[in-house]
Amino acid sequence: MRARLIGIGPGGPDELTVAAVHALNDVDVFLVADKQRGVDDLVSVREEICRRHITGEYRVIVVPDPPRDRAPERYGNEVRDWHAARAEAYETVLREQVLDGETVGFLVWGDPSLYDSTIRVVERIRERGIVDLDYDVIPGVSSVQMLAARHRLVLNRIGGPITITTGRRLARDVAAGGDNLVVMLDGGLACTELPGEWDIWWGANLGTSDEELVAGRLSEVRGRIEAARARSKSARGWVMDTYLLRRA
Amino acid sequence: MRARLIGIGPGGPDELTVAAVHALNDVDVFLVADKQRGVDDLVSVREEICRRHITGEYRVIVVPDPPRDRAPERYGNEVRDWHAARAEAYETVLREQVLDGETVGFLVWGDPSLYDSTIRVVERIRERGIVDLDYDVIPGVSSVQMLAARHRLVLNRIGGPITITTGRRLARDVAAGGDNLVVMLDGGLACTELPGEWDIWWGANLGTSDEELVAGRLSEVRGRIEAARARSKSARGWVMDTYLLRRA
Repeated sequence: MRARLIGIGPGGPDELTVAAVHALNDVDVFLVADKQRGVDDLVSVREEICRRHITGEYRVIVVPDPPRDRAPERYGNEVRDWHAARAEAYETVLREQVLDGETVGFLVWGDPSLYDSTIRVVERIRERGIVDLDYDVIPGVSSVQMLAARHRLVLNRIGGPITITTGRRLARDVAAGGDNLVVMLDGGLACTELPGEWDIWWGANLGTSDEELVAGRLSEVRGRIEAARARSKSARGWVMDTYLLRRA
Repeated sequence: MRARLIGIGPGGPDELTVAAVHALNDVDVFLVADKQRGVDDLVSVREEICRRHITGEYRVIVVPDPPRDRAPERYGNEVRDWHAARAEAYETVLREQVLDGETVGFLVWGDPSLYDSTIRVVERIRERGIVDLDYDVIPGVSSVQMLAARHRLVLNRIGGPITITTGRRLARDVAAGGDNLVVMLDGGLACTELPGEWDIWWGANLGTSDEELVAGRLSEVRGRIEAARARSKSARGWVMDTYLLRRA
């Protein structure tokens, strides 16, 4: 059995590569995780991408996602347990609903190499050794790059480094000397807890019609970011945001 | 006048997004830097991208690139001087060879937000105030993402940070605690000078027919990487490589 992990970009229906479009058209059956937390519009963008770019027939199998503790005591262990549970759920579907010669597709938001679990879950399935599965990865534009494009930013200062990190890790990476950081997976705007003055380039729902952008001195634009986050949460039930933070 | 800075991906002719294809078709005249150092195959891939994806008419203007000191005493200053010289060269072309209502296109390898000068040069032109120029940026897949895809890698460890840096900065970023680093613009394989044991995932000419990939313990695969670099240099006259480095 063959799987293709296809980066479909940050949100818009045309933000995937031509190579990704070719890969979509090579897939017999898409496995789609059902997150069961009000992300219907994400599902509908995915459907729109398939409708717009696939010319032949394909099946979609929705796989219920295992429950996940979002504030565990030991983050890494909890994530690994969740990967294992997801691998088992996918494996069951592969065994019961996919034929041997078929090609399976996974649609990955953004890029599969950046804070995404799909590669790790597929590797788990291979380690279990029950389903004979080979796979390849088609890269996609990440929300970080869409953020930079919308703000017309270069992420690095001339010759300087970039730290990509999470809200959970931010304080530690700043303490270690990071002063030019891209922050992902930050549910609570961790940057507002940092000492010192920072400039921020923030964006939510990048590449979609509900895109929100704010840039400026963090202490001055914090209220606008919080309002935009609240707006997106009340409209969609969730917010996907990311930002670049640079010491002022 | 309007400019579109279009990320065309890391090398292959289909590694740009559908949105980038739309942007290409919106351009009247492409400005292409002539690097004059034997990168003819890069020029030909660019031509192939235009031929394959543009349906209408377009012009291409080749702009000779200002000379650049590759080993300056003060790196940042030298880069800024070079940006200024390039801005002047482009400005001259925009004034003399582009009409007011026309749309100008810049083809950017990889992604315009990552170690690329095009945004900075266009900002320079705007600051000079002689040409009235607005612009937007279309993100593209970077060579880093293609590297990750080919090695089927997730760039971050679970919940962990990623440092993106240059060969020039690598030793400093490792000394500051970086142990999961993506290295770009490294002409001399700076990683081989680091103390300690490292795992490396290396790639060159990613997305092209001459792609080279090596992965393993750095001390064991170093010779294979050097041989692949030499092979690429003798075939093309240059090598574009990048790698992920992780403390073993």
